[in-house]
Amino acid sequence: MSNVVRIAVDAMGGDGSPKKVIDGIIHNHTLNKDNFFQIFGDEELIKPLIEKKLNPNFFKIVHTKNSVKSTDSPLEAAKKGKNTSMWLSIESVKKKESDIVISAGNTGALLVIAKLNLKMIESIDKPALSALWPNKKGMSVVLDLGANIECNSKNLTDFSIMGASLYKSLYPNENPKVALLNIGSEELKGNETIKETFQILSDKKLEFDFKGYIEGNELMNGEVNVIVSDGFTGNVALKTAEGTANFITQELKKTLGGNFIGKISSLLNFSNLSKFKKRLDPRLYNGAIFIGLDSPVVKSHGGTDYFGFSNSLNVCNRIVKGSLIEKIKNNI
Amino acid sequence: MSNVVRIAVDAMGGDGSPKKVIDGIIHNHTLNKDNFFQIFGDEELIKPLIEKKLNPNFFKIVHTKNSVKSTDSPLEAAKKGKNTSMWLSIESVKKKESDIVISAGNTGALLVIAKLNLKMIESIDKPALSALWPNKKGMSVVLDLGANIECNSKNLTDFSIMGASLYKSLYPNENPKVALLNIGSEELKGNETIKETFQILSDKKLEFDFKGYIEGNELMNGEVNVIVSDGFTGNVALKTAEGTANFITQELKKTLGGNFIGKISSLLNFSNLSKFKKRLDPRLYNGAIFIGLDSPVVKSHGGTDYFGFSNSLNVCNRIVKGSLIEKIKNNI
Repeated sequence: MSNVVRIAVDAMGGDGSPKKVIDGIIHNHTLNKDNFFQIFGDEELIKPLIEKKLNPNFFKIVHTKNSVKSTDSPLEAAKKGKNTSMWLSIESVKKKESDIVISAGNTGALLVIAKLNLKMIESIDKPALSALWPNKKGMSVVLDLGANIECNSKNLTDFSIMGASLYKSLYPNENPKVALLNIGSEELKGNETIKETFQILSDKKLEFDFKGYIEGNELMNGEVNVIVSDGFTGNVALKTAEGTANFITQELKKTLGGNFIGKISSLLNFSNLSKFKKRLDPRLYNGAIFIGLDSPVVKSHGGTDYFGFSNSLNVCNRIVKGSLIEKIKNNI
Repeated sequence: MSNVVRIAVDAMGGDGSPKKVIDGIIHNHTLNKDNFFQIFGDEELIKPLIEKKLNPNFFKIVHTKNSVKSTDSPLEAAKKGKNTSMWLSIESVKKKESDIVISAGNTGALLVIAKLNLKMIESIDKPALSALWPNKKGMSVVLDLGANIECNSKNLTDFSIMGASLYKSLYPNENPKVALLNIGSEELKGNETIKETFQILSDKKLEFDFKGYIEGNELMNGEVNVIVSDGFTGNVALKTAEGTANFITQELKKTLGGNFIGKISSLLNFSNLSKFKKRLDPRLYNGAIFIGLDSPVVKSHGGTDYFGFSNSLNVCNRIVKGSLIEKIKNNI
């Protein structure tokens, strides 16, 4: 790796692509000049969006007409072969022409095509899908979010190490505190797999601070930085948090806009409410990181906009500069 | 059952007991005159709280000095024997001297002592802990919330039938819509147990409307009335929702109270914000219902106040009048 971070971008995935992807690249460049973008997709559509807006020293378009659709099953997507924008962008990290790959496309397809192309990090059995999650003090890393429905204690131990490495590569000055998501803080509760993992992590010499168990209601209090779970539970937790946040903010909107006094008062309080909205803006923690393979693969939310995509590009930059893969290899 | 609902009340469980329990009884009586309370606990403490405030025709105190502590393990609690207020109140439904039992005490102890005393409903293998959960349109029933960490498809099928019966006994005019909590709405996703349950419920003649799978983010949109899960996932989902709600309302409080304009504006908007708070008041859906035994057992939140406890008493009343146990027996 030189000082430039080379990001392979699948320009054709997600709602409103390629425009939102290209606008995200252009916006990201205004903040950060050390990314180089290898853009995979339909040149006819991409070129008019980017030329004259971004200095050609900072990007290259690799043309392909083919792309994975959001409605493709992972198998259908893989069968489309090697010249979809998704496959080519993943192949770019495989060939070491890029340092990291990002797509806002079909999640299942991305996981499958990444697994087909990239090697596992030695001694890791399963890669995991991780994400950033806001809490009272900042952000935490949560994994697995759905890549692995059934996990054994070896998997959960690996996820702990990978999650701590990810946190450390994003926040180099902190010593990650790691906990297992469980249904009781007492050692007695939880299923056998979790108890075994607890024992392994308690006995092992670790590069992070193992904090034992955490319950769902503590996920957002900021006491731990990395929260580890099987993919089924993690996915339900993440989506329940999303659903709850939506429910409450919609109820609040109804309340504050419900009558004349409400409207006047909200107007008066506009800048405060904007701050609140900004603090919880899902675009700030857009993107999931697929870790365990020998190159990092970033999944941007399909529904995010250029600003969310730009934030994910920023995460890509920090992951590469933070030497995520080397950290995992050293700690596993 | 006569027209009077006989509620066995463990007066000694939860924070601030017996005062909050007795105040809850007194408050409940102002709303509803058809409950009779069998109150179990320390008469010396209870009597001064209730006499002159509630007509003696509506209650009876059964004295005992012994009680289960919140710090007791379920086993320790059971070993304390048959004269704790919790054991005696459960025994009261066993002897058919009461129609339903409620405690705000130690959850694990309540589940174990209930299982020791009460019979399972025939052909149900595991009882489940269920709760009411607010959504955009009203309330839904969610189960299991932690009584059973590992569940098979028979258990999840039973939970669906019990949950639908509970919903129907609380809301007699509605036909319950039931869904399985999963990580994808497509039939392909989910673990084997969930897929098997899906198949069983799709093939079975049911007294409710089976709606397939639901994801975490849809829990609160009000499209289904009963959400079924194993106890591990259900507990994580419930607690994550609680944690998220707390996180957001605290961030909102910080925002609205943060500066002069914020304070003035919130004051102006006081009645709107009160409505918002009331809509999400956890006391309105306080309490979990342990179902599958031949008497219903209600667990009030230990941290709730008299108003929350009174709401749980109201749930007790509706469950008995709605003939929950008969409904389960007829549908299983």
